[in-house]
Amino acid sequence: MAQEATASLPIATNYLGIGLVVIGAGYGIGKLAASALESMARQPEVAGNIQTAMIIAAALIEGFTFFALLLCWIA
Amino acid sequence: MAQEATASLPIATNYLGIGLVVIGAGYGIGKLAASALESMARQPEVAGNIQTAMIIAAALIEGFTFFALLLCWIA
Amino acid sequence: MAQEATASLPIATNYLGIGLVVIGAGYGIGKLAASALESMARQPEVAGNIQTAMIIAAALIEGFTFFALLLCWIA
Amino acid sequence: MAQEATASLPIATNYLGIGLVVIGAGYGIGKLAASALESMARQPEVAGNIQTAMIIAAALIEGFTFFALLLCWIA
Amino acid sequence: MAQEATASLPIATNYLGIGLVVIGAGYGIGKLAASALESMARQPEVAGNIQTAMIIAAALIEGFTFFALLLCWIA
Repeated sequence: MAQEATASLPIATNYLGIGLVVIGAGYGIGKLAASALESMARQPEVAGNIQTAMIIAAALIEGFTFFALLLCWIA
Repeated sequence: MAQEATASLPIATNYLGIGLVVIGAGYGIGKLAASALESMARQPEVAGNIQTAMIIAAALIEGFTFFALLLCWIA
Repeated sequence: MAQEATASLPIATNYLGIGLVVIGAGYGIGKLAASALESMARQPEVAGNIQTAMIIAAALIEGFTFFALLLCWIA
Repeated sequence: MAQEATASLPIATNYLGIGLVVIGAGYGIGKLAASALESMARQPEVAGNIQTAMIIAAALIEGFTFFALLLCWIA
Repeated sequence: MAQEATASLPIATNYLGIGLVVIGAGYGIGKLAASALESMARQPEVAGNIQTAMIIAAALIEGFTFFALLLCWIA
């Protein structure tokens, strides 16, 4: 009778993992987007080019972020 | 009778996860928006372009933030 | 009789989660608003434009902050 | 009877590992992409060359990130 | 009967090791790639040379990263 009760004793760390994942991804995208926006103001004539590169780099971070969030959910 | 009681013994960490998620997302959007606003003041003639790129980058962070918050709720 | 007593044994972490949520959102909005106010002083003629962008970015942070606070309440 | 219950006693640290992995990868890609975007604004005529090198370096980080996330899942 | 149960009591720290490995490798490759990309913008005529050196240095970090991840898996 006791094993269903004690089966939930360990700390559920997946929520902490979700939080750490968002801290990492938010820092990364925030840092690169900040540089992209400052660069667009410094060289307005290549703003389109910088925006494309910003989306490419942000999509790379976005990719493993969603994969990591899914792993925190299904693992 | 005891297993319903002890089933709630571990620390509920999903609230901590929610907090860490908002710290990450708030840092990211705050950093990129700060750079966007400073850039709009430095080059007012490309303010519309910078605002568009700011919303794109912020929406990327916004996306996985809501997904992470939902995971903290339903997981 | 014992299960109502032990049911409140774990640490109530939702208050900590609420605190972390406000730390993240307060940092984010504080950082971007600080840059906005400095930029409005540097370029007073685009103050209206900067204020609009500041409200957009702050509203993005405001959105998931309220959602996270609600989750800390009802979850 | 007791060993199935106590078998889940240790803290599940793989979620914490997933979070740390994303913090590392997000910091790395965010830092190099920030430098890439600033460099594209400083020398717009080699923007294509810098974008290629940015994707190469980001792909190197992306590679072991997904490998580490898979290890956190299957290990 | 009890020794199979207590055999799984210690915290599984290999996941934390995987996370720390990626933090170290992500920081290293991110930092060197950032310097490489900035250098390519400062001296565009040696961009190919810098890119080759960047890949060599990143591959050195990549090498022990995969070896360390494998050790976290099979150890």
